[in-house]
Amino acid sequence: MKAIKVGLLGIGTVGSGTFNVLRRNSQEIRGRAGRGIEITMVSRRNVALAKQIVGEGVTVTADPFDIIRNPEIDIVVETIGGCDLARTLVLEAIAAGKHVVTANKALVAVHGTEIFAAAREKGVMVAFEAAVAGGIPIIKALREGLTANRIEWIAGIINGTTNFILSEMRSKGLDFATVLKEAQRLGYAESDPTFDVEGVDAAHKLTIMSAIAFGVPVQFDKAHVEGISQLQAADIKYAEQLGYRIKLLGLTRRREKGIELRVHPTLVPITRLIANVEGAMNAVVVQGDAVGTTLYYGKGAGAEPTASAIIADLVDITRLHTADPDHRVPHLAFQPDAISDTAILPMEDVLSSYYLRLRVADEAGVLSSITTILAESDISIDAVLQRESADGERQTDLIILTHETSEGGMNKALARMQGLPTVLAPIVRLRKEELA
Amino acid sequence: MKAIKVGLLGIGTVGSGTFNVLRRNSQEIRGRAGRGIEITMVSRRNVALAKQIVGEGVTVTADPFDIIRNPEIDIVVETIGGCDLARTLVLEAIAAGKHVVTANKALVAVHGTEIFAAAREKGVMVAFEAAVAGGIPIIKALREGLTANRIEWIAGIINGTTNFILSEMRSKGLDFATVLKEAQRLGYAESDPTFDVEGVDAAHKLTIMSAIAFGVPVQFDKAHVEGISQLQAADIKYAEQLGYRIKLLGLTRRREKGIELRVHPTLVPITRLIANVEGAMNAVVVQGDAVGTTLYYGKGAGAEPTASAIIADLVDITRLHTADPDHRVPHLAFQPDAISDTAILPMEDVLSSYYLRLRVADEAGVLSSITTILAESDISIDAVLQRESADGERQTDLIILTHETSEGGMNKALARMQGLPTVLAPIVRLRKEELA
Repeated sequence: MKAIKVGLLGIGTVGSGTFNVLRRNSQEIRGRAGRGIEITMVSRRNVALAKQIVGEGVTVTADPFDIIRNPEIDIVVETIGGCDLARTLVLEAIAAGKHVVTANKALVAVHGTEIFAAAREKGVMVAFEAAVAGGIPIIKALREGLTANRIEWIAGIINGTTNFILSEMRSKGLDFATVLKEAQRLGYAESDPTFDVEGVDAAHKLTIMSAIAFGVPVQFDKAHVEGISQLQAADIKYAEQLGYRIKLLGLTRRREKGIELRVHPTLVPITRLIANVEGAMNAVVVQGDAVGTTLYYGKGAGAEPTASAIIADLVDITRLHTADPDHRVPHLAFQPDAISDTAILPMEDVLSSYYLRLRVADEAGVLSSITTILAESDISIDAVLQRESADGERQTDLIILTHETSEGGMNKALARMQGLPTVLAPIVRLRKEELA
Repeated sequence: MKAIKVGLLGIGTVGSGTFNVLRRNSQEIRGRAGRGIEITMVSRRNVALAKQIVGEGVTVTADPFDIIRNPEIDIVVETIGGCDLARTLVLEAIAAGKHVVTANKALVAVHGTEIFAAAREKGVMVAFEAAVAGGIPIIKALREGLTANRIEWIAGIINGTTNFILSEMRSKGLDFATVLKEAQRLGYAESDPTFDVEGVDAAHKLTIMSAIAFGVPVQFDKAHVEGISQLQAADIKYAEQLGYRIKLLGLTRRREKGIELRVHPTLVPITRLIANVEGAMNAVVVQGDAVGTTLYYGKGAGAEPTASAIIADLVDITRLHTADPDHRVPHLAFQPDAISDTAILPMEDVLSSYYLRLRVADEAGVLSSITTILAESDISIDAVLQRESADGERQTDLIILTHETSEGGMNKALARMQGLPTVLAPIVRLRKEELA
């Protein structure tokens, strides 16, 4: 059988990784796919550099549209990143009748609806396994492996930079700024780390998983996004004393009234496997009604892990392009006519349990005035940790863990507590999830 | 589109689970698959009981061959178990041109070659996600998700009964026999637990994963199989002191000369995620050259987790039956003409590091005579733990961890050490894997 011909839009880190793995493992991949898969054309502004990477026998162009116009190319792989040019290229490739593979999470999370509609109309596939959790085949698990299940919730460590930083903060007792610098030096964090540390990258990935799990459109703009830059070393330590570890989780959960979609630092019981995922690794927990809890773990970034996902998509397309389009795996797991308009809940309707740290005056009646406010707000307390005052200090830290309540209710209670004269500093509020 | 019609051979625990989940989640499953999937016929010797389970509208028969003869049935699900009748039924179903889904690990591990050849000839699919690690979509991950990779090794906790027993032995300090009785009382172990505790069930599953990972035929008879019934509580405790946890692992690894295929109790560093998989849960670690380490975790048994895998297979078949047969996912991941005859290594050629516990006389020169034998055998020592003798005792436990060496070399060294007059009891030898 004739080899499938692939064009690579952009050949940077991920593109090079894809090119190398496809070449190195060509025999294994052909043995599995039943036919060869060859990158025959690549684009990069610096043509000379691209030629160094791909060597002889591969056409190199400065203009990515050359690839889209080439009728020989069956599948286009987009590894350029960003939203503007990438969106144009992907839509043009679809219009030219080509299947598309992309590692671009922002593109899928923001422009997915438009792109998938265009693909459906042209009868081509758009695959994006590499857009979520790098080499972990989580899109495949959600769309195909767990297809029998009503998914209840997903919780994921889906950003390696922030997990590396949190792991270092905890194990070395350092603060955020110090560890960020170290992460930048080691290449785990970008020089402008905003997208990672403020949770935006995780929210892109979570948005995609949420759509697939619950059969709703991608709605990145409805995600609640909170990063780790405000997280203090003291809270990591208190959490540990209470049996919890703080992770930046992407969380999406089906509730009676709608879907929760949120990224924020979260206390997770140390006994959960996901609490023990350290360094730059990723892991996703999926709760299905039939299967129960499953977890998927691996490298969430890097040239070859991402290439692993891109090539899996290439093989899938090679397989499924002979199936009639109605029988292909739907982009968002559900057939277009089965996509629902279930609302994404506003953050104040989200249910969570909470960790509160209050800097309070060390005097009689303080705990009572705080617990009274919580009781009046129908928020029940799970645990309290009160530190002894240090010598000579007249203030101390009071830590409260609550049971599940609404974010809106918690906000009101927090405002009242903050107004107490015995509460001496802004209250630290973190969310806590049992994940059971 | 017309619904796919499924016949269930046997409706016990797993069959009922499949029936219930398929009915409960029929809307979600149809939304994903693009068409309905309906169980229209089931067989069970006790017809009345089967009727109670399935209710009105489903044909019940005492004779499973009625289902195979029914031209209306598109896919047959085999949940009878065992090898004899199941093999006959599956081969007959294939001969009748029906696709087959099975949860039967023994059948696939022992008769896979014959069954897959028959299926290929008739152009039908045989799917077996439920045969390995229950609801975890590990077959899909290996055959499709990691298709870009040259797989280096797989290590799995793939038997829930033994993992439950080991977890209890460790956390409660109890011995094997006591915990086994408790596991039987709780329904985690069968009244005849041999298949589970002696590693046979794990070896069936490992054999299947090994074939898929390395592109070789299933060869259950070449697997080295060792269970946990001889494991002593003392070794679990010593391992813990040295930073290891003992798990019953199924291990398959590509070596220069062939493939290792072995099930045995194994020391794993406590820092590895898989070492922290407790109770009846399953987990599989896969090492690929591009993706690095990935891990898959979930329930390895039970009615609904198994149903989750069976229904995923039903949806896959529903999708892929319109693709031309050459483009379907090959049964063992590789196309028939790409299956290799790489040998399964005999156990004495397997490479491992080791944990040794020697009961020795507490006198001068003992350690020296033992380390001399190891040195002469080219076995290098990683760590030594020597306990103080208890009061009045003239003997003590000597624990040695070695670096990697061949099993054959270790056997010879063990025979020499066992012959020393200062070695007072049979030496305990366990294998140790760093899994890095």
